[in-house]
Amino acid sequence: MQILNHGHIRLVDHMGSDISIVRNARVSYNAEPRNDGSDEKLIDYLVRNNHNTPLECVKFTFDVKAPIFVFRQWHRHRTWSFNEVSARYSELPQEYYIPEVSQITTQSSSNKQMRTDSEHPEAELMQRMITSQCESAFHTYQQMLAQGVPRELARGVLPLNTFSHMFATVDLHNLSHFLKLRLHEHAQYEIRVYAQAMLELVEPIVPVALAAIRRHVL
Amino acid sequence: MQILNHGHIRLVDHMGSDISIVRNARVSYNAEPRNDGSDEKLIDYLVRNNHNTPLECVKFTFDVKAPIFVFRQWHRHRTWSFNEVSARYSELPQEYYIPEVSQITTQSSSNKQMRTDSEHPEAELMQRMITSQCESAFHTYQQMLAQGVPRELARGVLPLNTFSHMFATVDLHNLSHFLKLRLHEHAQYEIRVYAQAMLELVEPIVPVALAAIRRHVL
Amino acid sequence: MQILNHGHIRLVDHMGSDISIVRNARVSYNAEPRNDGSDEKLIDYLVRNNHNTPLECVKFTFDVKAPIFVFRQWHRHRTWSFNEVSARYSELPQEYYIPEVSQITTQSSSNKQMRTDSEHPEAELMQRMITSQCESAFHTYQQMLAQGVPRELARGVLPLNTFSHMFATVDLHNLSHFLKLRLHEHAQYEIRVYAQAMLELVEPIVPVALAAIRRHVL
Amino acid sequence: MQILNHGHIRLVDHMGSDISIVRNARVSYNAEPRNDGSDEKLIDYLVRNNHNTPLECVKFTFDVKAPIFVFRQWHRHRTWSFNEVSARYSELPQEYYIPEVSQITTQSSSNKQMRTDSEHPEAELMQRMITSQCESAFHTYQQMLAQGVPRELARGVLPLNTFSHMFATVDLHNLSHFLKLRLHEHAQYEIRVYAQAMLELVEPIVPVALAAIRRHVL
Repeated sequence: MQILNHGHIRLVDHMGSDISIVRNARVSYNAEPRNDGSDEKLIDYLVRNNHNTPLECVKFTFDVKAPIFVFRQWHRHRTWSFNEVSARYSELPQEYYIPEVSQITTQSSSNKQMRTDSEHPEAELMQRMITSQCESAFHTYQQMLAQGVPRELARGVLPLNTFSHMFATVDLHNLSHFLKLRLHEHAQYEIRVYAQAMLELVEPIVPVALAAIRRHVL
Repeated sequence: MQILNHGHIRLVDHMGSDISIVRNARVSYNAEPRNDGSDEKLIDYLVRNNHNTPLECVKFTFDVKAPIFVFRQWHRHRTWSFNEVSARYSELPQEYYIPEVSQITTQSSSNKQMRTDSEHPEAELMQRMITSQCESAFHTYQQMLAQGVPRELARGVLPLNTFSHMFATVDLHNLSHFLKLRLHEHAQYEIRVYAQAMLELVEPIVPVALAAIRRHVL
Repeated sequence: MQILNHGHIRLVDHMGSDISIVRNARVSYNAEPRNDGSDEKLIDYLVRNNHNTPLECVKFTFDVKAPIFVFRQWHRHRTWSFNEVSARYSELPQEYYIPEVSQITTQSSSNKQMRTDSEHPEAELMQRMITSQCESAFHTYQQMLAQGVPRELARGVLPLNTFSHMFATVDLHNLSHFLKLRLHEHAQYEIRVYAQAMLELVEPIVPVALAAIRRHVL
Repeated sequence: MQILNHGHIRLVDHMGSDISIVRNARVSYNAEPRNDGSDEKLIDYLVRNNHNTPLECVKFTFDVKAPIFVFRQWHRHRTWSFNEVSARYSELPQEYYIPEVSQITTQSSSNKQMRTDSEHPEAELMQRMITSQCESAFHTYQQMLAQGVPRELARGVLPLNTFSHMFATVDLHNLSHFLKLRLHEHAQYEIRVYAQAMLELVEPIVPVALAAIRRHVL
């Protein structure tokens, strides 16, 4: 799934299903699986009452490409497992985030951390400033590399808009917590689009649990 | 797999393989997968140098039945996810651990936490004492339940030898740490047999990683 | 603080205060501390909106003595750090939980995991059954130890009512999560009394945060 | 403690000491504290044998200012608790890392992730390139802010060399793991200096444990 100008997110691997959540939960009650629609009720009950451990048996690995400032927010979630490209080890490709003109709005004055929905009067000019600043940073980066400057030092001039790449593994309980925070209207647009994409990617795998998460968590 | 007199361990679900470890690790190096035997070297390198996050993309869920004193050691591993039967919620079946006569040895004097390898001279008598004590505890438990005593109170008389049941989920990195500690000769026999069984259950799924773990961790 | 018949809980060590929560939170806003009552509002805001990391700078170590079935619930909280007496290493003293007569009620029929509030008609008899069963278990335990049976095997006959002892360390955020679950009316009485005691022990150290936690979490 | 050109690290708060490690460990052995030099041996034993939980009762909060690329490595350690300034919420001051000339060496060819020890022949020129690139990025950033571009978007042009600020809390066990990795000769110089500073800051608080960590971990 393409996201932002150079990014993507892809579901690489997964384990478990609505059935496995039920099976894990029923261990606690020493109860047999049933075929009478009660599974749906059980999952709803678990999610509504924060009985989260049965949801931890469902796992996902995502392949994510996103701007570094997005990764910075992502990596604060300490229950994920991350494998990210190392800019000490290899040169980063010249890919940086350029916000679409419609996304370049103005600083909110009512909420200190947010932006408004109204396009900036000079959005196109601002977009050109971002582009040329990032262009110039990559130019300096590549020049330094060409001169034999260590990769680990040269990358210091790269902008936070630079795209990075990782494989990220998480369980359904902790994913739902991530989605709650990062789909929130106060979350930054550039991470919300990844959260939204994950929601859509996992929905076919655990449709009943996702419906319950939508009802009670998001 | 049958373990101890009433226990078992079964692999219920798993995600990933040697290939996924390689794929996760190669993200860090921005490198393509290769077909020249270098995958095996890469996995060996990761394990030898404690580059553990790529191993965290491999997940296992086990169905475990074991004595409560074994679960007590197991639950101290905080990176696992557990769903265990609740003795507040349902009556526990009359199943308790009776050590085989050959396992009833003597207290080690050189190592304060261990037992020796030499069978106790009165091993059979000791086994009968254990059996009849546990028998009596279950009898009292069942009597109290029959009289309407709350399950959460009645279970207090049950012995630590009582079998409990859980689903337990872990990743390969944290499993290998568990195996290192619980396959150690200082670990108690009754948990070592579960560790050994898990080793055998996961080996066919990640044979290359397991070989490296045997070489460098265990 | 004495709890149950042989138990206790004591605050051994702590770090931080309401002031440190504020100081940690203000880093995020790049803001100076203030003396205009706004600290209280800030803490209330953090707790109400689940901005939990500033609460993680406040730490507590408790010295806890409680029945093993209580520890079994406690140890499922994976963000604590525990050091517990090892029954492989030393003999456990003959101390077991005897519920007071008023606590011996009947199994709830409306809630499968709970007990009612009405005293069991034969509460005193039930109390004697519990006492004599535990007495007998300790007697067998001590006999086996006297005969040189390994401690790690002999302890298997001890009841879940046996008191154990640990030092337990946690931060304020994760403590408040524990309190939310374990002060809940559905929690078992025997762990609720420990939760209640911790609430009282930490209140003088972080009075403002505790007030906010009472308002928004508990 | 001043580190790099605009950075610092300071110990803000701490809990525990060598004595508390001993006290926590002795709970496991059901043993009294002693005054015969055996405490030192016990701590050495714990560290040598990876009996880590007693070290988790010692906690530190650091106030850290460091370049963002250093924070990016730091935040991958998931057992720390972080409170970092938000560039969505406030404007970042014009402070960026300029490596000293002696630090601007060349890319290692033998180790793909490292730099050599030999100063780059054009180190001063490279330093000027870094400086002017970062200068230009901050200029663009400030211009955009002046035009009302949202802070969360404008910060995208800032370089990875930009200094950020956080309070970071960790326990001694997980700090020693951090130090092992980040004091390693393969770690990047710019994070090694922070690791070295933390080592010196905590040494007076837990001198015996630090001596053991130096012997067996680092």
